[in-house]
This record gives sequence, structure tokens and C-alpha cells, in this order.
Amino acid sequence: MRIGVVHETAAGERRVALIPQEVDGLRKAGHEVLVETGAGVAAGFPDAAYAERGAVIASATDVLGAEVVLFVRAPGSDPTLADALLAWLRPGQVTVGLADPLGAPAAAAALATAGITSFALDLLPRITRAQAMDVLSSQATLAGYKAALLAASRLNKIFPMLTTAAGTLPPARALVIGAGVAGLQAIATCKRLGAVVSAYDVRPAAREQAESVGATFVDLGLDAADAETTGGYAAALGEDFYRRQREALGKVVAASDIVITTAQVQGVRAPILVTAEMVHAMAPGSVVVDLAAAQGGNCELSEPDTEVDVDGVTLLAPTNLPATVPAHASRLYAKNLTNFLKLLIVDGAVRLDLDDPIIADTLVTHDGEVVAPRVRERLGLA
Amino acid sequence: MRIGVVHETAAGERRVALIPQEVDGLRKAGHEVLVETGAGVAAGFPDAAYAERGAVIASATDVLGAEVVLFVRAPGSDPTLADALLAWLRPGQVTVGLADPLGAPAAAAALATAGITSFALDLLPRITRAQAMDVLSSQATLAGYKAALLAASRLNKIFPMLTTAAGTLPPARALVIGAGVAGLQAIATCKRLGAVVSAYDVRPAAREQAESVGATFVDLGLDAADAETTGGYAAALGEDFYRRQREALGKVVAASDIVITTAQVQGVRAPILVTAEMVHAMAPGSVVVDLAAAQGGNCELSEPDTEVDVDGVTLLAPTNLPATVPAHASRLYAKNLTNFLKLLIVDGAVRLDLDDPIIADTLVTHDGEVVAPRVRERLGLA
Repeated sequence: MRIGVVHETAAGERRVALIPQEVDGLRKAGHEVLVETGAGVAAGFPDAAYAERGAVIASATDVLGAEVVLFVRAPGSDPTLADALLAWLRPGQVTVGLADPLGAPAAAAALATAGITSFALDLLPRITRAQAMDVLSSQATLAGYKAALLAASRLNKIFPMLTTAAGTLPPARALVIGAGVAGLQAIATCKRLGAVVSAYDVRPAAREQAESVGATFVDLGLDAADAETTGGYAAALGEDFYRRQREALGKVVAASDIVITTAQVQGVRAPILVTAEMVHAMAPGSVVVDLAAAQGGNCELSEPDTEVDVDGVTLLAPTNLPATVPAHASRLYAKNLTNFLKLLIVDGAVRLDLDDPIIADTLVTHDGEVVAPRVRERLGLA
Repeated sequence: MRIGVVHETAAGERRVALIPQEVDGLRKAGHEVLVETGAGVAAGFPDAAYAERGAVIASATDVLGAEVVLFVRAPGSDPTLADALLAWLRPGQVTVGLADPLGAPAAAAALATAGITSFALDLLPRITRAQAMDVLSSQATLAGYKAALLAASRLNKIFPMLTTAAGTLPPARALVIGAGVAGLQAIATCKRLGAVVSAYDVRPAAREQAESVGATFVDLGLDAADAETTGGYAAALGEDFYRRQREALGKVVAASDIVITTAQVQGVRAPILVTAEMVHAMAPGSVVVDLAAAQGGNCELSEPDTEVDVDGVTLLAPTNLPATVPAHASRLYAKNLTNFLKLLIVDGAVRLDLDDPIIADTLVTHDGEVVAPRVRERLGLA
């Protein structure tokens, strides 16, 4: 099959869906790989590196004409990809990438109308067999790492304890809220840098994981038995629960030099965990990094991709930290994606095995229809 | 005595010479402490915090009228402090701070003419008894830490090795050139973050120190027996030596994801260690952080406080990283400074004990004359 790799178009996007090392495997499986001119440059992979592996450097038109088109940010996830793209794609083509179909269901509807068979890797089930394809986890790991670095870069103190001839500096105090993949990596990175780290998560099961990477778990004494879905993601809880949670968290936030929030619930607005009042109670020079900004934010005052100063407290709400480590982010993404393709393409043809939850859960549109139940629901088609 | 603390005026300077905690000791010793309005705000110390400790919040005029005036960046080190300041100071007043008298001897000459008794903490001898006052070391430690963070923030990869379900990312490779105080802290911080770190220094004695914080020492096979002064600072070597050094270093630089250079020689231009050719040989996405930029730079292409992109390689040349962690930098600086003041002010009066090398070496101007021999030399007065 002809497999196309696009040059990403979203603002600030530096990742690429396939890196040169992954061209080999696809070619051995009999595929022709078309890479759009300059697709990997921002990630550190020049065209020549793809060409050396046997990929064809091609125009956007050719790449978008391939039978399978690979994206990091497919229509939906990339708001700039819309009508223009759909005009190039033909019925029966397959697209694979992050597509945010729950957040941007209209894009899914448009892909369905265009007759595209589209897969959203955001919808991969959290089952063992899917781990090697789990782009959300691989990218969240990098986001957590960079969130800690960002906080350390902006804090008016250093993280580690420092003993000098002129006395001792105490270590910085970090609080990480949400101990999922990103949160755990943020904890580990803050800890590596020498901070004293506390962590909080509504899911009681997160305590052991947070402690295993060096955090002290903050017990707010709240009951949250329903905080985890059967799929392993955090579930949405009632506003009353969040209110009590904010009250209890306030004191911990005020005593922290940095706060990193990572609480996201798939497909719905992120809960507000850090209020304006809590930010005002922090010491000047402190830093909040809100990793849920793309979903509305965990901090009441954060603005996506904008630095906000609140009486000397710096609020950062980066929506795409993986793109700031594009070489490694692309490498992990490309490996996840090619693992998915091995399952999707069998003997040179796309096989829609809907008995396989990996295929069934990620398939969003096919044969002119939006087929993913949760996306249909959002579009009022359920 | 009346001791004044100025609101620093240099661009980007966020430090303050005295923090509220150090007010106590000065008041107990019988001094009155005048703090200029807003002096500590950028470092996280509001006026109220000084007032609580018994300092008087005062105007610039009052602060500059004190018998002893404390600076982080005194005239010379702060290029914006010049004639205007001198118009306020009166003969017999004492100034203490970083003053860069070897780099900016004209400022010293002006202070002499104005009849100021000025001390440059940059000239402290590296003797055991002066360690608790050593502002160059305390600030260099912070600069080294932040240089590593800056490199990590900008590299297109993550520093630590990461093992995921989709394979393993190898650790980043860092090279630190110059294993003094800043270099050692840069090594330690890169190492904490998980990078594989190499280090190089012309002083053979630096090997053990670099290795003790986790670096592999790069042996270029060059003889540099005269590389260390009796004072413990790096000495200037001949251009032939530097040429051979660059040739040997080139390969190590090309194989590194990040290069941090910290090679400074007091009072002279920093040696060029990383040439344009060496930067061009680095992989796109790599980062060079040049900590010697204020002294002309160790990298041929770096521009002070400006980000330079060389075919995808990012060059950073920050001249004042300690100011980016102003709370801790001010805390260490203030402790260093008050330790110096304890020696300088005895029984309520400034005592110019020129038999004490700490006083003798740091005294730059007194009684209408430039008295520091190396500064006199630069002014053609020797």
C-alpha cells in the first residue's frame, strides 16, 4: 500500500508521525512510504534521512493521495486541517492519528461525509495488548517531564537542597495534582531535580504509584470510590465533591513553590482544582503549570498557551508540551503508530476486524458514517 | 551605621543585595538598615517583609545617602549606574557589591574621583576564610544549575533514558566544558536529570571533581601544566594551545546533544572553545549554552542574551542566570555580603585592615585613588 506522512500544520506542532527508522519496517512489509517535503525537519529528521531509508519525498498532494495517511494531529485534533484537507482526500482513504473526536466531533462528521475511514488513536482501549500503541501515554510521559522542567525554569528558587559555605538552601516544594502518566513523570522529574514532592489524585489506587516515584501522597480525607472508570481513566465526579476537594487542597497549594496539575477526564471539561483564591494565597515567585489547559484547565485563571502573572505567581498552561521535545516525541509516536499499523494492515490490505477492541474502539468513521458510539452521541446521532 | 540597600537598576536584574532575614543581624550589631522601595519585590521579598524586621523603607536618595551602600551590581557591573549615581554619593561613603573592576576599570576611576571607598566582591581571594563571602561561587552554582535546565528545556529530546512499551529512548549526551563551580553544578544537574555527561577542563586537577559529580572526564592528551593560577582560578593559555584544544574537542562536541561552556579567565576575554565549524557539525535540535558570554563567550557564534539558530542548533548565551532564581540567589548573596560586612565593620565603624587579604584584595578605590593594583594596571596607572 501507499502510506503517506504529512507535514503537520497545527501552530507550534513540531512532531512528525513517522521517523526515518520506522520506514524500514513498512517497506519490508511491502508498502511504499511517501513523506511530505520537510515533514520531519522540525523534529530533527531531514528529508535526506527518510530518503536514505527508501521513502519517497513527495508533495502534499501526493501524500494526501496515499491509501493510508498518517498524522500526528489529524482533522479534529488539528483545528487548521479542515475543508482544504477534505477536498484532497477521496472516499475509501484511511487516516490514522490523534483526532480528538470527543472534543471535536464535527470534524468526525465531516470525515464521514467525505467517505474517509478514520482512526483516532486517542480512543485506544487501555488494555495490555494496546500498550505498545498507546500514544496518549507516550506523549503524556513527555508532557509530565517537560512540565516539571518548565516549573523549575520559572521558579524564583532552585529545586535541590544546596549546602554552601554561606548556609543551606532548603529544597523546593512541589505539588502534583493528578497522578496519571503525566503526573507520575512530573513527580519523578521534580524528585530527580531535588524537590520535595507531594501528590494528589482522586483515585485511591494512585497513592501507591505516586509513592513509588518519590512523592508523599496527600490524603484529603474525601471519599471518591467512583473516581476510576473500568477503562482505567479518571472519571468525572460531582461538583459537590470538587468543591470539598478544593477546600482541602487550598492549604497544600499555598505551601507549595510549584503546582503541576494534570487532571483530565476524557471528553469532558477538566475539573477546576486550583481556584483564583488559591493562586492568590501562593507566595510571589511560585509557579503553576496547568497541563489540562486544552480541556479547559485545572486552574481557574490559566489561559491556554499564555503566561499569566497573578501578583507575582506565574501561571503556565501549555497545550502541547510533547511538541517541545519533538525528536523523542516523534520517535515514540512513530513506534506506537507502526505497531497499530501492523494490526490494521494485514497482507497488504486494511482489515477492519471489529471483533478486535483496538480496531473497533479507534474506528471513528467508515463508509460514510460516524461509527464510534460516543462520537455519535455527541453529534446527536445515537 | 546607616546601611542602604538599593533597588537594582540593571536590565533583567531581579536580585537584591540584602534579604529580610539578614536585617536582624545588622540591627543587632547596631546598624540602621534603609531599603529602597521595591528593592526586593522581583526576588519575592516585599517591602513589608523588610519593615517587619525593622528596616526602614526609604527613597533612592536616602538609601544612596547611607554611610555604607550595598549593591548586587555596583557601578561597573551595572552599566546603567554611572554619572547619575555618582552625583548622589558623597566622598567617604562606602559601596560594596559586584563591580567588575577588571572588565570596567573606568567605573572604578570615576568612583575614585568621587572620593568613594569601594569594595568589589568579585576580587575576593580564594582562601578558606573567604568562602562564606564568596559571591562568585554562590552565584556560579546557581548559574550552572540553570544552564543545565535551560539546555534541557530547549533540547528536542528528553534527558533521561526512558523505557516504554514502545521501546527505549537513550539518554541525552551532555558535554560540560570548564569544571569550575558553575561547570560542576551543570554536570550534577544534567546527571540528576538522567543525561550521560562528559566534562572537560584545562586544569588536570578538575578531573577528580568532575568525576565525583558523575561526569566522564574527556582527556584530550594536551599538556596544560600552567592552567591554574596560584589563586585557584583558570589561567589564560596561548592561542596555540587553544587551537589544538579545539581540534581535539570538535569530535566530542559533534557527538553531544548539549554543550555547556563555562570557561572564564578573570579579567580577560574568555577563550573560544566552540567554533562555528563545531556548531555546524552538531545535529539539528542540539543546544549550546555559553555561560562565558559576558566575557566575550566560549562559542564563536554566541551573542549575549540572544538566541541564535545555526541550522537547527540553538545557541544560548545568558549573561545573568542567577537573576532567574532571584529568591535563592539573593539569599546566598545576602549571606555572603553580611559575612563580609562583619569583617569590614567593627564596633560600628568601617575598619580598613589592609593586612587582611580579604579587605586588601577587594578594596578598589579609597581616598580619591584607585588602589587595586590590577585595576591600576588596566587604567595605565601602575
